[in-house]
Amino acid sequence: MASDRFDILFVLGGARSGKSAYAEMRARQTGLDPIYLATAQALDEEMRDRVARHREDRASDGWKTIEEPLALTEAIGAETDRSRVLLVDCLTLWVSNLMLAERDIPNEIERLISRLRKGPPGPIVFVSNETGLGIVPDNAMARAFRDHAGRLNQRIAAMADEVVFVAAGLPLVLKTAR
Amino acid sequence: MASDRFDILFVLGGARSGKSAYAEMRARQTGLDPIYLATAQALDEEMRDRVARHREDRASDGWKTIEEPLALTEAIGAETDRSRVLLVDCLTLWVSNLMLAERDIPNEIERLISRLRKGPPGPIVFVSNETGLGIVPDNAMARAFRDHAGRLNQRIAAMADEVVFVAAGLPLVLKTAR
Amino acid sequence: MASDRFDILFVLGGARSGKSAYAEMRARQTGLDPIYLATAQALDEEMRDRVARHREDRASDGWKTIEEPLALTEAIGAETDRSRVLLVDCLTLWVSNLMLAERDIPNEIERLISRLRKGPPGPIVFVSNETGLGIVPDNAMARAFRDHAGRLNQRIAAMADEVVFVAAGLPLVLKTAR
Repeated sequence: MASDRFDILFVLGGARSGKSAYAEMRARQTGLDPIYLATAQALDEEMRDRVARHREDRASDGWKTIEEPLALTEAIGAETDRSRVLLVDCLTLWVSNLMLAERDIPNEIERLISRLRKGPPGPIVFVSNETGLGIVPDNAMARAFRDHAGRLNQRIAAMADEVVFVAAGLPLVLKTAR
Repeated sequence: MASDRFDILFVLGGARSGKSAYAEMRARQTGLDPIYLATAQALDEEMRDRVARHREDRASDGWKTIEEPLALTEAIGAETDRSRVLLVDCLTLWVSNLMLAERDIPNEIERLISRLRKGPPGPIVFVSNETGLGIVPDNAMARAFRDHAGRLNQRIAAMADEVVFVAAGLPLVLKTAR
Repeated sequence: MASDRFDILFVLGGARSGKSAYAEMRARQTGLDPIYLATAQALDEEMRDRVARHREDRASDGWKTIEEPLALTEAIGAETDRSRVLLVDCLTLWVSNLMLAERDIPNEIERLISRLRKGPPGPIVFVSNETGLGIVPDNAMARAFRDHAGRLNQRIAAMADEVVFVAAGLPLVLKTAR
């Protein structure tokens, strides 16, 4: 069902769906040196704990970790070594960071897509949250976030050679090259 | 996977999932004259912008647009031309409008289902949001909305000859005639 | 697609997705005497009405109903009759009850998993909500709930021989033994 060769693999899922663990497994299966590109910003203690716990979990497995909350496109461009696989976790946190920093999000998305069109330097796994399957949020900021995140998910899914939805730790293939 | 002939096609998805674009593509593929039956009510500026933008997007493609926030069953019944395809976007907004207008929603749903049982005058595509996959909402109104919308989705799915769930712009077939 | 023999069947879905009706149908198809293990606690009138309505719906079909909001592991262990099928509805309400009672949830989850590893006394159907596909909740309690529920769903899915996601009343197989 799943191939161990891909240019862009897109892993979509809910909170605590097991999407990151699935993405890490797929990155590992490439046999390439894995780089974890974390978009998380530790703004409070709850987040700091989560980020640190995840970093520790990976450290013992020989992952290199890069933390980049905003300049994702540049960070992807800087990784020119074709012998590695890049795991970006996750796109929705990136969108959230861009909103907090008051960046022009449609423009940032276009820049990311343009960079990917040139071809990523090696295989890349994107992890993202599906956030549009609950009730319409009360506040306009959350609605705007949901719109940006949904549009970005569509763009990445369109470019990916494989798209997998993860629920309760189980993968459901939405798109596959073969 | 997808047929271009159907009596009732039901397209279910989240906010910004690409469900409307998918539904429009499927309506177009029938080769029939498309009518867009919009249930959206422009209650504030944010909504007015969205509705106008969507209307413009379709106008250039030769769609006829009907706006009907409440009398959906009558609007479907009025379209007696078998040479057209009707796209209803979307059922969850209809439920929301009915709640605001304090209508008897179970009764309104029964009336819609009865009309569909007589056979729609031509192929019809229903678009709806799945809203039950987040945390239980705090307020009773939102919980009631979620219940009505979920029950309506089940009824339409049971009648449809094809049901497609859309995530990140990609279709996942839940039910198919063949 | 679906087998009528299973040790653990896990039915996951949203609110008003038809997941309970699907789970009841699958329990009935085993041909065994069905026991409904309800975790719902009637804390307010809205809930009391729902619980009572569901109990009445099943009573006419010859189901035995057990209500157990907290001691789920013990209730499963107490059912030693292999000629019955047990339907647990639902795991997310159990997590919610444990949080209200300030129990150690990771420990409660381990106890349930350990019990299941010994082998359930007969076939068992677990129903659970997927709650992680909306916007991140504002309050920390709801985020903690979502984390616990998501982790429990992953654990049960990993143990189940069959996992089905239900949307708009339609089953989507995520995992199957054959």
